[in-house]
Amino acid sequence: MNHQPPTTNPDRCFSPDPAQRKLARELHENVKDLPIVSPHGHVDPRLFADPEATWGSPADLLIIPDHYVFRMLYSQGISLESLGVPTRDGSAVETDHRQIWQTFAESFYLFRGTPTGIWLTAELVEVFGVKKKLTGDTAQEIYDQIESKLTTPDFRPRALFDKFNIEVMATTDAATDPLTSHQQILNSDWGIHPSTGKPRIRPTFRPDAVVNLNAAGWRESIDALSAISGIAVDSYCSLIAALENRRAFFKQMGATATDHGALTAYTEELGGEEADAMFAKALRSHATEEDATRFTGHLLIEMARMSIEDGLVMQLHVGSCRNHNRSIFERFGPDKGCDIPVTSEFTRSLQPLLNKYGNDPRLTLVLFTLDETAYSRELAPLAGHYPALRLGPPWWFHDSFNGMRRYFDQAMETAGLCNTAGFNDDTRAFPSIPARHDLWRRASADWIAGLLVRGLIDEDDAQEMVFDCTTRLAREAYRL
Amino acid sequence: MNHQPPTTNPDRCFSPDPAQRKLARELHENVKDLPIVSPHGHVDPRLFADPEATWGSPADLLIIPDHYVFRMLYSQGISLESLGVPTRDGSAVETDHRQIWQTFAESFYLFRGTPTGIWLTAELVEVFGVKKKLTGDTAQEIYDQIESKLTTPDFRPRALFDKFNIEVMATTDAATDPLTSHQQILNSDWGIHPSTGKPRIRPTFRPDAVVNLNAAGWRESIDALSAISGIAVDSYCSLIAALENRRAFFKQMGATATDHGALTAYTEELGGEEADAMFAKALRSHATEEDATRFTGHLLIEMARMSIEDGLVMQLHVGSCRNHNRSIFERFGPDKGCDIPVTSEFTRSLQPLLNKYGNDPRLTLVLFTLDETAYSRELAPLAGHYPALRLGPPWWFHDSFNGMRRYFDQAMETAGLCNTAGFNDDTRAFPSIPARHDLWRRASADWIAGLLVRGLIDEDDAQEMVFDCTTRLAREAYRL
Amino acid sequence: MNHQPPTTNPDRCFSPDPAQRKLARELHENVKDLPIVSPHGHVDPRLFADPEATWGSPADLLIIPDHYVFRMLYSQGISLESLGVPTRDGSAVETDHRQIWQTFAESFYLFRGTPTGIWLTAELVEVFGVKKKLTGDTAQEIYDQIESKLTTPDFRPRALFDKFNIEVMATTDAATDPLTSHQQILNSDWGIHPSTGKPRIRPTFRPDAVVNLNAAGWRESIDALSAISGIAVDSYCSLIAALENRRAFFKQMGATATDHGALTAYTEELGGEEADAMFAKALRSHATEEDATRFTGHLLIEMARMSIEDGLVMQLHVGSCRNHNRSIFERFGPDKGCDIPVTSEFTRSLQPLLNKYGNDPRLTLVLFTLDETAYSRELAPLAGHYPALRLGPPWWFHDSFNGMRRYFDQAMETAGLCNTAGFNDDTRAFPSIPARHDLWRRASADWIAGLLVRGLIDEDDAQEMVFDCTTRLAREAYRL
Repeated sequence: MNHQPPTTNPDRCFSPDPAQRKLARELHENVKDLPIVSPHGHVDPRLFADPEATWGSPADLLIIPDHYVFRMLYSQGISLESLGVPTRDGSAVETDHRQIWQTFAESFYLFRGTPTGIWLTAELVEVFGVKKKLTGDTAQEIYDQIESKLTTPDFRPRALFDKFNIEVMATTDAATDPLTSHQQILNSDWGIHPSTGKPRIRPTFRPDAVVNLNAAGWRESIDALSAISGIAVDSYCSLIAALENRRAFFKQMGATATDHGALTAYTEELGGEEADAMFAKALRSHATEEDATRFTGHLLIEMARMSIEDGLVMQLHVGSCRNHNRSIFERFGPDKGCDIPVTSEFTRSLQPLLNKYGNDPRLTLVLFTLDETAYSRELAPLAGHYPALRLGPPWWFHDSFNGMRRYFDQAMETAGLCNTAGFNDDTRAFPSIPARHDLWRRASADWIAGLLVRGLIDEDDAQEMVFDCTTRLAREAYRL
Repeated sequence: MNHQPPTTNPDRCFSPDPAQRKLARELHENVKDLPIVSPHGHVDPRLFADPEATWGSPADLLIIPDHYVFRMLYSQGISLESLGVPTRDGSAVETDHRQIWQTFAESFYLFRGTPTGIWLTAELVEVFGVKKKLTGDTAQEIYDQIESKLTTPDFRPRALFDKFNIEVMATTDAATDPLTSHQQILNSDWGIHPSTGKPRIRPTFRPDAVVNLNAAGWRESIDALSAISGIAVDSYCSLIAALENRRAFFKQMGATATDHGALTAYTEELGGEEADAMFAKALRSHATEEDATRFTGHLLIEMARMSIEDGLVMQLHVGSCRNHNRSIFERFGPDKGCDIPVTSEFTRSLQPLLNKYGNDPRLTLVLFTLDETAYSRELAPLAGHYPALRLGPPWWFHDSFNGMRRYFDQAMETAGLCNTAGFNDDTRAFPSIPARHDLWRRASADWIAGLLVRGLIDEDDAQEMVFDCTTRLAREAYRL
Repeated sequence: MNHQPPTTNPDRCFSPDPAQRKLARELHENVKDLPIVSPHGHVDPRLFADPEATWGSPADLLIIPDHYVFRMLYSQGISLESLGVPTRDGSAVETDHRQIWQTFAESFYLFRGTPTGIWLTAELVEVFGVKKKLTGDTAQEIYDQIESKLTTPDFRPRALFDKFNIEVMATTDAATDPLTSHQQILNSDWGIHPSTGKPRIRPTFRPDAVVNLNAAGWRESIDALSAISGIAVDSYCSLIAALENRRAFFKQMGATATDHGALTAYTEELGGEEADAMFAKALRSHATEEDATRFTGHLLIEMARMSIEDGLVMQLHVGSCRNHNRSIFERFGPDKGCDIPVTSEFTRSLQPLLNKYGNDPRLTLVLFTLDETAYSRELAPLAGHYPALRLGPPWWFHDSFNGMRRYFDQAMETAGLCNTAGFNDDTRAFPSIPARHDLWRRASADWIAGLLVRGLIDEDDAQEMVFDCTTRLAREAYRL
């Protein structure tokens, strides 16, 4: 019996075959210490605006804000209240963080074989130097150890950012966000990476709240857009003007990309009058579900046009049925592990956008799916043809070792590696970033070693491909 | 050339990689002799009610009732008549069971690499001690060998049940079934398992025939329900009362679960008046297809409520387009290998049921799919969130070595092993039960060995996981 | 670092596991030199009608006509004009074939790990004896080498056909094609294969242009059908008569199969009057989209009837959304790498056809999909039941090493190998034929070796299965 924490295994993820494993290890060796390029994620920029910012308790850091963690505990009957997840109405939840940690540790076995389990173990071992396996018995001792580290300057956000060797990290920010934290970071002596001379932290323009007519609080978001842009958004034309205004501001603040979340990839070009009428209807709170779908589909095409003009890379994430569990949503709000994927269609849905702008090399549109059946059927054929398209990495539920294997298996032969966009960690859990990138680098190295050991590529190819996967493709796709 | 029957290979199914194979063998060794827990299947309980019951001929046992077997022969142009499959109208079919066996043996090569081939070979070798490969040349000799065994007391159903080390086996029974055989078994000195003190054979409540308004013979089934429950089922309310009455009886007879088959997972809560009107319409034979879909969808929600109240575990099997081949259905009836899967949707379909009862830990709802695309897209995310949900094992066409590999690959990282329900053999072919469970145990051991050899779990995890897969999860999910 | 071209690796594609690799190598050894049976493809028969025919330049041979090649280059921003792809209006494109080749060579790295890359490398190495890796630096030297070979008699089409050891190759030909080239080939001293005594090159009857009411140029195709059949096609009845007439001619010219391409697998039997009315409406250019779908669906059933009568094997390819990129289609025409798959449904769509003719052993219907999700869910269950059905090999985007692995994994356990149709190369790139068949033979050998090394089949099974995959199943399915 081996009681060592598993992530101390230097060959983890690699094929057990000795020949493939040796090649994978060599390929990984070449890239494992490269800087992290993180072009899409959800870390809170405030953590880096204040040089004295701290993480709070181990539960604040690793449990309370991470829906990957508490969804699994909840699925086995552990209440979100007992995990300290804050309620919307402020009603009481567990406040003893040692107790929350104990509950988590006693159920840590639920994460066996899951990516969350692998990331968490890597964080404990590699970030916090934990030597024991997390169980109910070791919970408090490990809590002590993490808590004591978190009080030291070496574990403040900026220090970890540097320790993690992150070259650049993008956040995701509402169109109406004043980007105050980004401004503070840029103004600080830490904001610019000394080697690249470029911002360490970049915003990403995410206009869903003003673009999706049926988004919760849409009217308030439009008002906020008017206020921050200084453009009275009272018509379709002024909406476009305000969006262009905000994109220009985001770009000036270091953004290289926009991000769009929609239930489907539906696009449709509306005439100016129709778009105007639909927007006016929405302002009067009369927009139908169908109006919302069509208006969003039209604005996606407009966003592609703007991307061609201002050079911001466009990301599209589709297929998540948000807040599926109504009572959890009502009590705790969004992002509580209740978003469930649905079937997604791209071929017909994106045709209007692609027919208009897909041949334009100035556009880069990165596509993400939660429906893996689209990899081989739609996304790889589309990405392997349209100059404007890149296939994004495995997203969310599929950002796992097997999810990556399926992606390499199903997408690469048809799309070609160069039509993909490298890796995104897409996380709000900052300390998991190194573990996520390392998992991708290991999965990439193992995939490439598999091609090599089967004689399908040669060693020169393999060396270039592993660099492509690690940093080159992400830098290129996101213009970083 | 190796002419030994393949199932004599003690390492069958395991990865060829020596390191993984060694681990898989060790893990399998620990669980291969554990008792069989069979919480869902279709074996006829009459076989165990009469201690003198026998199987008939080798063709009666292995060919004539098994649609897994004759579908493959039929697909290659061998008529069902020539295989002795009885016709609805009693028109003549082959009655020479030696000839049926000969036909089967000459085409046994069709099963190469199929799960049916693997199960049949295992049955021949391990249950009947056959030493030669089944071909046209060896057919009669092997027939003799099986036939002579079948006449001995050691091969009677109860004897095989004990020899197979089955701890508990659930049957599937219509809501209107009087459960006479189950009563006889319980009354016998064999009915209670000596180690567990619990029934060896348990019924499962399957009300499809009375719940699906468009089921063939629905009106007759309703009358039978009235008769057996003593409740005149003439309204929606009396239907509910009769169903509750029957569930109570099934529970008293040892049932721990219900089972529901539907074309889709659609659920919708109807108002009481609407449900009543729909049921009245159906009684007048005026129910439309849409009524049937909505009424079934409503009753699924009602069944979840009853499960919360009476503690019976709820199973839902969806996605089979039954009796696709009309002429075969008309001539031979249902369950003749002509059921073909269709696309299945769960995320939106189950939302009404899950929003009502999915957070209630008293409910266990086990989901089965014939559409594997739902594993990673919908079922694993749902099971990894809702406390009431468990993902059932690979079903029917997917209950194969590769089907299991895809299931482990696609479902486990997101659902987590503990949100699954272990294994079901789901078979009417009693002698295949050990082979099916052994295949699952081997596939599980190989999957877990793969995680271990890649450093993704440790050895303690591996040991617990292989026990989980073998018996613990099934016992827990089915409250056995 | 190994700079040898990868295809010189005699073990390419095989599992790295030494035990499986050894078995795969042995199985492959037994079949690698078997003649090529190519029952479905798109090579131009004119190349073989004239014994002096040549290929033109290396760019004419390998780049300009091959949409697999230029789609990938186009996806990375290389214009089709710069690759010499001819425009519809004759506007200028690159005519310097050395420059086209240089452009291609400089971007050849894009094909790393893709099937096109594997085929091209095999062609360069094994057909043209190229010893260096294709890059910008080696481009002109390799161009010289290929160009000089192409001028020799040994590299003329008929000589390569013989050198490739092709036993029989089917082309795909419009219903209105006079089959002049086929006639010339049959009349020549080369037309009949000396070993088999049968035609080397066979036509395939493809009536899409007259069957799909909304096909571009449908009216002109109907006129051409009238002209060539001598039957005035002015009614549904005369259409049927003309199609039967042409099928008889194709059969007389050596055809053993028909081929049907449709967006979906929808079938529906229309009454004679309805079909007649719909056809009349189409002649008046009034057919709707729905008419076209229903009429095609009806004619597919009629084609099955004709196949039963004349013995031609029926092929059905569905799920490609043709000419997705409108501007490329308008400038360059069809088959320019812009066909993108969509979701395909078979279970319900084919039920009318299968209920009418699926039980008839005189019919062989070979099904192809671009939606791999249908393998395990619909196609394998259908093929494993209906006597008339065979599952065709992985098609188009899935005709790759991993595509084949997924096919073996997902289809074979349920369909059974004997319900599949062996391999099709489906190519218009003649010199890629040996590489494509070899990839299939290697993938088959590796799959079978995997079953063997896991103890799921025995060595006798393995030997027969690898022959089945290589030639027997294709010969049987296509009646060659």
